Amino acid sequence: MKVAILLYEDFTALDAIGPYEVLRFLPGTEVQFVGKRRGVAKSDSGFLSIVTEHDITSVSSADILVIPGGPGQIVAERDPEILDWVQRIHATTQFTTSVCTGSIILGAAGLLRGLRATTHWMYLERLREFGAEPTLERVVPQGKIVTAAGVSSGIDMALTLAATIAGPDVAQSLQLSIEYDPQPPFDAGSPKKAPAHVTEMVRQAFTDFFATYTERRAAAGGQ
Amino acid sequence: MKVAILLYEDFTALDAIGPYEVLRFLPGTEVQFVGKRRGVAKSDSGFLSIVTEHDITSVSSADILVIPGGPGQIVAERDPEILDWVQRIHATTQFTTSVCTGSIILGAAGLLRGLRATTHWMYLERLREFGAEPTLERVVPQGKIVTAAGVSSGIDMALTLAATIAGPDVAQSLQLSIEYDPQPPFDAGSPKKAPAHVTEMVRQAFTDFFATYTERRAAAGGQ
Repeated sequence: MKVAILLYEDFTALDAIGPYEVLRFLPGTEVQFVGKRRGVAKSDSGFLSIVTEHDITSVSSADILVIPGGPGQIVAERDPEILDWVQRIHATTQFTTSVCTGSIILGAAGLLRGLRATTHWMYLERLREFGAEPTLERVVPQGKIVTAAGVSSGIDMALTLAATIAGPDVAQSLQLSIEYDPQPPFDAGSPKKAPAHVTEMVRQAFTDFFATYTERRAAAGGQ
Repeated sequence: MKVAILLYEDFTALDAIGPYEVLRFLPGTEVQFVGKRRGVAKSDSGFLSIVTEHDITSVSSADILVIPGGPGQIVAERDPEILDWVQRIHATTQFTTSVCTGSIILGAAGLLRGLRATTHWMYLERLREFGAEPTLERVVPQGKIVTAAGVSSGIDMALTLAATIAGPDVAQSLQLSIEYDPQPPFDAGSPKKAPAHVTEMVRQAFTDFFATYTERRAAAGGQ
Protein backbone atom coordinates (compact mmCIF):
# COMPACT_ATOMS: atom_id res chain seq x y z
CA MET A 1 0.00 0.00 0.00
CA LYS A 2 1.18 3.47 -0.77
CA VAL A 3 0.45 6.26 1.71
CA ALA A 4 0.80 9.83 0.39
CA ILE A 5 1.00 12.64 2.96
CA LEU A 6 0.65 16.12 1.46
CA LEU A 7 2.96 18.75 2.93
CA TYR A 8 1.92 22.21 1.77
CA GLU A 9 3.61 25.36 3.06
CA ASP A 10 2.78 26.06 6.74
CA PHE A 11 1.31 22.66 7.56
CA THR A 12 1.22 21.62 11.24
CA ALA A 13 3.89 19.00 11.82
CA LEU A 14 2.14 16.75 14.34
CA ASP A 15 -0.89 16.46 12.00
CA ALA A 16 1.40 14.71 9.52
CA ILE A 17 3.82 12.91 11.84
CA GLY A 18 1.14 11.27 13.99
CA PRO A 19 -0.39 9.24 11.10
CA TYR A 20 3.08 8.69 9.58
CA GLU A 21 4.41 7.10 12.77
CA VAL A 22 1.50 4.63 12.82
CA LEU A 23 0.94 3.88 9.12
CA ARG A 24 4.60 3.33 8.24
CA PHE A 25 4.53 0.11 10.25
CA LEU A 26 1.46 -1.29 8.50
CA PRO A 27 2.76 -4.45 6.82
CA GLY A 28 3.65 -3.85 3.17
CA THR A 29 3.23 -0.11 3.36
CA GLU A 30 5.34 2.67 1.89
CA VAL A 31 4.85 6.28 3.00
CA GLN A 32 5.67 9.27 0.78
CA PHE A 33 5.81 12.91 1.82
CA VAL A 34 4.53 14.90 -1.12
CA GLY A 35 5.29 18.60 -1.40
CA LYS A 36 3.86 21.09 -3.82
CA ARG A 37 7.47 21.30 -4.96
CA ARG A 38 10.29 18.83 -4.35
CA GLY A 39 12.82 20.07 -1.81
CA VAL A 40 11.64 21.01 1.62
CA ALA A 41 8.24 21.86 3.05
CA LYS A 42 8.27 24.49 5.78
CA SER A 43 5.89 23.82 8.66
CA ASP A 44 3.83 26.50 10.38
CA SER A 45 6.43 27.20 13.08
CA GLY A 46 8.86 28.43 10.44
CA PHE A 47 11.75 26.53 12.04
CA LEU A 48 10.76 22.96 11.25
CA SER A 49 11.09 21.86 7.64
CA ILE A 50 10.68 18.37 6.26
CA VAL A 51 12.38 17.08 3.14
CA THR A 52 9.93 16.28 0.34
CA GLU A 53 11.35 13.70 -2.04
CA HIS A 54 8.11 13.71 -4.03
CA ASP A 55 5.90 16.43 -5.43
CA ILE A 56 2.36 16.64 -6.75
CA THR A 57 3.56 16.23 -10.34
CA SER A 58 5.39 12.97 -9.53
CA VAL A 59 2.69 11.24 -7.48
CA SER A 60 -0.39 10.20 -9.41
CA SER A 61 -1.98 7.61 -7.11
CA ALA A 62 -2.12 6.46 -3.51
CA ASP A 63 -3.93 3.82 -1.50
CA ILE A 64 -4.18 6.18 1.46
CA LEU A 65 -4.12 9.95 1.16
CA VAL A 66 -3.48 12.01 4.31
CA ILE A 67 -4.09 15.77 4.29
CA PRO A 68 -2.79 17.47 7.42
CA GLY A 69 -4.05 20.79 8.71
CA GLY A 70 -2.26 23.98 9.58
CA PRO A 71 -2.55 27.69 8.91
CA GLY A 72 -1.27 27.21 5.34
CA GLN A 73 -4.60 25.52 4.64
CA ILE A 74 -6.14 28.96 4.10
CA VAL A 75 -3.92 29.27 1.03
CA ALA A 76 -4.03 25.60 0.00
CA GLU A 77 -7.84 25.55 -0.06
CA ARG A 78 -7.75 28.14 -2.87
CA ASP A 79 -4.83 26.62 -4.76
CA PRO A 80 -6.13 24.99 -7.97
CA GLU A 81 -2.98 22.86 -8.34
CA ILE A 82 -3.44 21.36 -4.88
CA LEU A 83 -7.21 20.89 -5.22
CA ASP A 84 -6.81 19.26 -8.61
CA TRP A 85 -4.15 16.91 -7.22
CA VAL A 86 -6.33 15.99 -4.22
CA GLN A 87 -9.23 15.16 -6.56
CA ARG A 88 -7.05 13.06 -8.85
CA ILE A 89 -5.43 11.13 -5.99
CA HIS A 90 -8.81 10.65 -4.30
CA ALA A 91 -10.03 8.89 -7.45
CA THR A 92 -7.33 6.23 -6.87
CA THR A 93 -7.49 5.77 -3.07
CA GLN A 94 -8.89 3.16 -0.76
CA PHE A 95 -8.99 5.84 1.95
CA THR A 96 -8.87 9.62 1.73
CA THR A 97 -8.17 11.12 5.14
CA SER A 98 -7.55 14.42 6.87
CA VAL A 99 -6.33 15.67 10.20
CA CYS A 100 -7.39 19.02 11.68
CA THR A 101 -8.12 21.69 9.06
CA GLY A 102 -6.96 19.32 6.33
CA SER A 103 -10.67 18.51 6.01
CA ILE A 104 -11.29 22.06 4.76
CA ILE A 105 -9.02 21.22 1.81
CA LEU A 106 -11.05 18.04 1.21
CA GLY A 107 -14.17 20.19 1.39
CA ALA A 108 -12.79 22.76 -1.06
CA ALA A 109 -11.97 19.87 -3.41
CA GLY A 110 -15.67 18.96 -3.32
CA LEU A 111 -15.21 15.68 -1.49
CA LEU A 112 -17.32 16.27 1.62
CA ARG A 113 -20.73 17.10 0.13
CA GLY A 114 -23.46 15.40 2.11
CA LEU A 115 -21.04 13.81 4.56
CA ARG A 116 -20.56 14.18 8.29
CA ALA A 117 -17.06 15.49 8.86
CA THR A 118 -14.82 17.02 11.52
CA THR A 119 -11.85 19.36 11.81
CA HIS A 120 -10.12 21.37 14.55
CA TRP A 121 -12.92 22.42 16.95
CA MET A 122 -12.25 26.13 16.22
CA TYR A 123 -13.14 25.71 12.54
CA LEU A 124 -16.03 23.23 12.59
CA GLU A 125 -18.60 25.64 11.18
CA ARG A 126 -16.49 26.23 8.07
CA LEU A 127 -17.30 22.68 6.92
CA ARG A 128 -20.87 23.80 6.14
CA GLU A 129 -19.48 25.91 3.25
CA PHE A 130 -18.68 22.66 1.49
CA GLY A 131 -22.00 20.94 2.10
CA ALA A 132 -20.70 18.84 4.99
CA GLU A 133 -22.33 18.36 8.37
CA PRO A 134 -19.81 19.29 11.07
CA THR A 135 -19.53 17.07 14.11
CA LEU A 136 -17.34 17.42 17.20
CA GLU A 137 -16.05 13.84 17.14
CA ARG A 138 -12.46 12.60 17.13
CA VAL A 139 -12.51 10.33 14.06
CA VAL A 140 -15.35 10.36 11.52
CA PRO A 141 -15.32 7.56 8.93
CA GLN A 142 -17.77 8.07 6.05
CA GLY A 143 -17.15 5.35 3.52
CA LYS A 144 -13.65 5.84 2.23
CA ILE A 145 -13.37 9.37 3.59
CA VAL A 146 -12.11 9.66 7.15
CA THR A 147 -11.76 13.06 8.79
CA ALA A 148 -10.18 13.61 12.19
CA ALA A 149 -10.23 16.42 14.76
CA GLY A 150 -7.38 18.79 15.66
CA VAL A 151 -3.63 18.09 15.41
CA SER A 152 -3.06 15.10 17.76
CA SER A 153 -6.14 13.20 16.52
CA GLY A 154 -4.21 11.85 13.54
CA ILE A 155 -2.77 9.16 15.81
CA ASP A 156 -6.25 7.90 16.70
CA MET A 157 -7.33 8.19 13.07
CA ALA A 158 -4.39 6.14 11.84
CA LEU A 159 -4.95 3.42 14.45
CA THR A 160 -8.61 3.25 13.43
CA LEU A 161 -7.55 2.93 9.80
CA ALA A 162 -4.96 0.26 10.69
CA ALA A 163 -7.66 -1.78 12.41
CA THR A 164 -9.94 -1.52 9.37
CA ILE A 165 -7.17 -2.47 6.95
CA ALA A 166 -5.16 -5.04 8.89
CA GLY A 167 -7.33 -6.06 11.83
CA PRO A 168 -7.26 -5.46 15.58
CA ASP A 169 -4.10 -7.44 16.35
CA VAL A 170 -1.99 -5.37 13.98
CA ALA A 171 -3.60 -2.10 15.12
CA GLN A 172 -2.95 -2.97 18.76
CA SER A 173 0.64 -3.95 17.99
CA LEU A 174 1.17 -0.54 16.37
CA GLN A 175 -0.35 1.16 19.40
CA LEU A 176 1.95 -0.79 21.71
CA SER A 177 4.98 -0.08 19.49
CA ILE A 178 4.53 3.66 19.91
CA GLU A 179 3.45 3.11 23.54
CA TYR A 180 0.29 5.12 22.95
CA ASP A 181 -1.14 4.89 26.44
CA PRO A 182 -2.13 8.55 26.80
CA GLN A 183 -2.00 10.10 30.25
CA PRO A 184 -2.22 13.86 29.82
CA PRO A 185 -1.91 15.71 33.12
CA PHE A 186 -5.26 17.44 32.49
CA ASP A 187 -8.53 16.52 30.79
CA ALA A 188 -8.74 19.67 28.69
CA GLY A 189 -8.27 18.41 25.15
CA SER A 190 -11.76 19.24 23.92
CA PRO A 191 -13.92 22.37 24.26
CA LYS A 192 -16.46 20.01 25.87
CA LYS A 193 -13.98 19.34 28.68
CA ALA A 194 -11.67 22.35 29.07
CA PRO A 195 -12.58 25.09 31.57
CA ALA A 196 -14.48 27.92 29.82
CA HIS A 197 -11.75 30.49 30.49
CA VAL A 198 -9.14 28.20 28.92
CA THR A 199 -11.30 27.70 25.82
CA GLU A 200 -11.66 31.48 25.61
CA MET A 201 -7.84 31.93 25.91
CA VAL A 202 -7.29 29.55 23.01
CA ARG A 203 -10.07 31.04 20.90
CA GLN A 204 -8.54 34.50 21.33
CA ALA A 205 -4.99 33.29 20.62
CA PHE A 206 -6.09 31.49 17.43
CA THR A 207 -8.13 34.48 16.27
CA ASP A 208 -5.19 36.84 16.80
CA PHE A 209 -2.75 34.44 15.18
CA PHE A 210 -4.89 33.97 12.07
CA ALA A 211 -5.51 37.69 11.62
CA THR A 212 -1.74 38.30 11.56
CA TYR A 213 -1.10 35.20 9.48
CA THR A 214 -3.72 36.07 6.87
CA GLU A 215 -2.26 39.56 6.47
CA ARG A 216 1.25 38.19 6.13
CA ARG A 217 0.31 35.61 3.50
CA ALA A 218 -1.78 38.18 1.61
CA ALA A 219 1.21 40.59 1.64
CA ALA A 220 3.43 37.76 0.35
CA GLY A 221 0.99 37.14 -2.50
CA GLY A 222 -0.34 33.78 -1.32
CA GLN A 223 2.09 30.94 -2.11
CA MET B 1 13.29 30.03 27.04
CA LYS B 2 15.33 28.06 24.58
CA VAL B 3 14.35 24.47 23.84
CA ALA B 4 16.98 22.32 22.12
CA ILE B 5 15.83 19.05 20.54
CA LEU B 6 18.68 16.75 19.50
CA LEU B 7 18.17 14.99 16.17
CA TYR B 8 20.79 12.27 15.74
CA GLU B 9 20.76 9.90 12.77
CA ASP B 10 17.84 7.43 12.92
CA PHE B 11 15.82 9.19 15.61
CA THR B 12 12.10 8.43 15.82
CA ALA B 13 10.18 11.41 14.48
CA LEU B 14 7.16 11.40 16.81
CA ASP B 15 9.49 11.36 19.86
CA ALA B 16 10.75 14.77 18.74
CA ILE B 17 7.63 16.25 17.12
CA GLY B 18 5.30 15.53 20.07
CA PRO B 19 7.22 17.76 22.54
CA TYR B 20 7.98 20.30 19.78
CA GLU B 21 4.29 20.78 19.00
CA VAL B 22 3.55 21.51 22.66
CA LEU B 23 6.64 23.45 23.79
CA ARG B 24 6.79 25.80 20.79
CA PHE B 25 3.62 27.50 22.08
CA LEU B 26 4.95 28.08 25.58
CA PRO B 27 5.01 31.87 25.89
CA GLY B 28 8.43 33.32 25.13
CA THR B 29 9.88 30.04 23.91
CA GLU B 30 12.13 29.33 20.95
CA VAL B 31 12.70 25.74 19.77
CA GLN B 32 15.85 24.65 17.95
CA PHE B 33 16.41 21.34 16.19
CA VAL B 34 20.04 20.45 16.74
CA GLY B 35 21.76 17.92 14.50
CA LYS B 36 25.15 16.35 14.93
CA ARG B 37 25.85 18.19 11.70
CA ARG B 38 23.96 21.07 10.15
CA GLY B 39 21.91 20.08 7.11
CA VAL B 40 19.35 17.34 7.49
CA ALA B 41 18.79 14.63 10.09
CA LYS B 42 17.42 11.38 8.71
CA SER B 43 14.82 9.70 10.89
CA ASP B 44 14.62 5.95 11.48
CA SER B 45 12.18 5.33 8.61
CA GLY B 46 14.79 6.48 6.11
CA PHE B 47 12.24 8.54 4.16
CA LEU B 48 11.58 11.32 6.64
CA SER B 49 14.32 13.88 7.12
CA ILE B 50 14.17 17.11 9.10
CA VAL B 51 16.25 20.17 8.36
CA THR B 52 18.71 20.98 11.16
CA GLU B 53 19.63 24.66 11.16
CA HIS B 54 21.77 24.14 14.26
CA ASP B 55 24.42 21.62 15.21
CA ILE B 56 26.10 20.54 18.41
CA THR B 57 29.02 22.89 17.81
CA SER B 58 26.72 25.93 17.47
CA VAL B 59 24.45 25.32 20.48
CA SER B 60 26.11 25.68 23.87
CA SER B 61 23.13 26.13 26.20
CA ALA B 62 19.42 25.46 26.52
CA ASP B 63 16.72 25.98 29.10
CA ILE B 64 15.05 22.72 28.08
CA LEU B 65 16.90 19.84 26.44
CA VAL B 66 14.85 17.12 24.73
CA ILE B 67 16.52 13.86 23.69
CA PRO B 68 14.25 11.70 21.51
CA GLY B 69 14.62 7.95 21.14
CA GLY B 70 14.97 5.78 18.09
CA PRO B 71 17.16 2.96 16.83
CA GLY B 72 20.03 5.39 16.19
CA GLN B 73 20.32 5.66 19.96
CA ILE B 74 22.43 2.48 19.94
CA VAL B 75 25.08 4.47 18.06
CA ALA B 76 24.48 7.80 19.81
CA GLU B 77 24.94 6.27 23.26
CA ARG B 78 28.54 5.43 22.32
CA ASP B 79 29.29 8.67 20.48
CA PRO B 80 31.65 10.80 22.62
CA GLU B 81 30.74 14.00 20.73
CA ILE B 82 27.05 13.53 21.49
CA LEU B 83 27.57 12.47 25.12
CA ASP B 84 29.90 15.39 25.73
CA TRP B 85 27.36 17.80 24.22
CA VAL B 86 24.53 16.36 26.32
CA GLN B 87 26.60 16.80 29.48
CA ARG B 88 27.55 20.37 28.61
CA ILE B 89 23.98 21.38 27.73
CA HIS B 90 22.63 19.65 30.83
CA ALA B 91 24.87 21.89 32.95
CA THR B 92 22.94 24.89 31.58
CA THR B 93 19.34 23.58 31.62
CA GLN B 94 16.33 24.12 33.80
CA PHE B 95 15.02 20.78 32.52
CA THR B 96 16.78 17.88 30.82
CA THR B 97 14.26 15.52 29.26
CA SER B 98 14.01 12.40 27.17
CA VAL B 99 11.40 10.49 25.24
CA CYS B 100 11.58 6.72 24.64
CA THR B 101 15.15 5.39 24.39
CA GLY B 102 16.49 8.94 24.59
CA SER B 103 16.86 8.17 28.30
CA ILE B 104 19.54 5.60 27.46
CA ILE B 105 21.57 8.47 26.02
CA LEU B 106 21.03 10.43 29.24
CA GLY B 107 22.12 7.31 31.14
CA ALA B 108 25.23 6.88 29.02
CA ALA B 109 26.05 10.54 29.70
CA GLY B 110 26.01 9.68 33.41
CA LEU B 111 22.93 11.74 34.23
CA LEU B 112 20.61 9.05 35.62
CA ARG B 113 22.68 7.59 38.47
CA GLY B 114 20.50 6.99 41.50
CA LEU B 115 17.35 8.22 39.76
CA ARG B 116 14.09 6.54 38.85
CA ALA B 117 13.73 6.71 35.09
CA THR B 118 11.73 5.30 32.21
CA THR B 119 12.12 4.54 28.51
CA HIS B 120 10.28 2.50 25.87
CA TRP B 121 8.89 -0.54 27.74
CA MET B 122 11.00 -2.94 25.64
CA TYR B 123 14.26 -1.42 26.93
CA LEU B 124 13.50 -0.65 30.57
CA GLU B 125 16.06 -3.07 31.98
CA ARG B 126 18.87 -1.33 30.10
CA LEU B 127 18.52 1.66 32.43
CA ARG B 128 20.11 -0.41 35.23
CA GLU B 129 23.43 -0.29 33.34
CA PHE B 130 23.55 3.41 34.13
CA GLY B 131 22.67 3.17 37.81
CA ALA B 132 19.03 4.15 37.29
CA GLU B 133 15.98 2.42 38.68
CA PRO B 134 13.64 1.57 35.78
CA THR B 135 9.94 2.19 36.22
CA LEU B 136 7.05 1.51 33.83
CA GLU B 137 5.47 4.95 34.19
CA ARG B 138 4.57 7.45 31.48
CA VAL B 139 6.38 10.55 32.75
CA VAL B 140 8.99 10.41 35.51
CA PRO B 141 10.15 13.79 36.90
CA GLN B 142 13.24 13.57 39.14
CA GLY B 143 14.31 17.08 39.96
CA LYS B 144 15.29 18.70 36.70
CA ILE B 145 15.52 15.41 34.84
CA VAL B 146 12.27 14.19 33.27
CA THR B 147 12.20 10.91 31.36
CA ALA B 148 9.16 9.69 29.42
CA ALA B 149 8.04 6.32 28.05
CA GLY B 150 7.90 5.21 24.39
CA VAL B 151 7.40 7.47 21.35
CA SER B 152 3.98 9.10 21.91
CA SER B 153 4.65 9.87 25.60
CA GLY B 154 6.55 13.01 24.68
CA ILE B 155 3.22 14.82 24.33
CA ASP B 156 2.29 13.99 27.93
CA MET B 157 5.80 14.85 29.10
CA ALA B 158 5.73 18.26 27.41
CA LEU B 159 2.30 19.09 28.85
CA THR B 160 3.55 18.13 32.32
CA LEU B 161 6.57 20.38 31.80
CA ALA B 162 4.36 23.22 30.52
CA ALA B 163 2.26 23.00 33.69
CA THR B 164 5.37 23.14 35.89
CA ILE B 165 6.84 26.09 33.99
CA ALA B 166 3.78 28.15 33.09
CA GLY B 167 0.95 26.83 35.26
CA PRO B 168 -2.18 24.77 34.63
CA ASP B 169 -4.06 27.36 32.54
CA VAL B 170 -1.30 27.58 29.96
CA ALA B 171 -0.78 23.80 29.92
CA GLN B 172 -4.50 23.22 29.40
CA SER B 173 -4.60 25.84 26.64
CA LEU B 174 -1.78 24.01 24.85
CA GLN B 175 -3.64 20.72 25.24
CA LEU B 176 -6.80 22.27 23.81
CA SER B 177 -4.85 23.92 20.96
CA ILE B 178 -3.61 20.55 19.75
CA GLU B 179 -6.99 19.00 20.65
CA TYR B 180 -5.26 16.31 22.69
CA ASP B 181 -8.34 14.41 23.78
CA PRO B 182 -7.02 10.92 23.09
CA GLN B 183 -9.49 8.25 22.02
CA PRO B 184 -7.49 5.32 20.65
CA PRO B 185 -9.74 2.56 19.31
CA PHE B 186 -8.05 0.04 21.64
CA ASP B 187 -6.55 0.14 25.13
CA ALA B 188 -3.33 -1.58 24.15
CA GLY B 189 -0.71 1.12 24.56
CA SER B 190 1.12 -0.47 27.48
CA PRO B 191 2.37 -4.02 28.06
CA LYS B 192 0.21 -3.89 31.23
CA LYS B 193 -2.87 -3.50 29.03
CA ALA B 194 -2.21 -5.12 25.64
CA PRO B 195 -3.21 -8.76 25.07
CA ALA B 196 -0.25 -11.07 25.75
CA HIS B 197 -0.07 -12.30 22.13
CA VAL B 198 0.08 -8.70 20.89
CA THR B 199 2.92 -7.88 23.30
CA GLU B 200 4.73 -10.97 22.05
CA MET B 201 4.22 -9.87 18.39
CA VAL B 202 5.77 -6.50 19.14
CA ARG B 203 8.61 -7.96 21.20
CA GLN B 204 9.51 -10.27 18.32
CA ALA B 205 9.24 -7.52 15.69
CA PHE B 206 11.47 -5.18 17.70
CA THR B 207 14.01 -7.93 18.39
CA ASP B 208 14.19 -8.82 14.68
CA PHE B 209 14.37 -5.19 13.63
CA PHE B 210 17.20 -4.39 16.02
CA ALA B 211 19.23 -7.43 15.04
CA THR B 212 19.12 -6.32 11.39
CA TYR B 213 19.62 -2.68 12.30
CA THR B 214 22.63 -3.35 14.51
CA GLU B 215 24.29 -5.40 11.74
CA ARG B 216 23.62 -2.67 9.19
CA ARG B 217 25.01 0.12 11.35
CA ALA B 218 28.04 -2.01 12.30
CA ALA B 219 28.67 -2.70 8.60
CA ALA B 220 28.41 1.03 7.89
CA GLY B 221 31.02 1.70 10.61
CA GLY B 222 28.70 3.32 13.14
CA GLN B 223 27.92 6.92 12.20
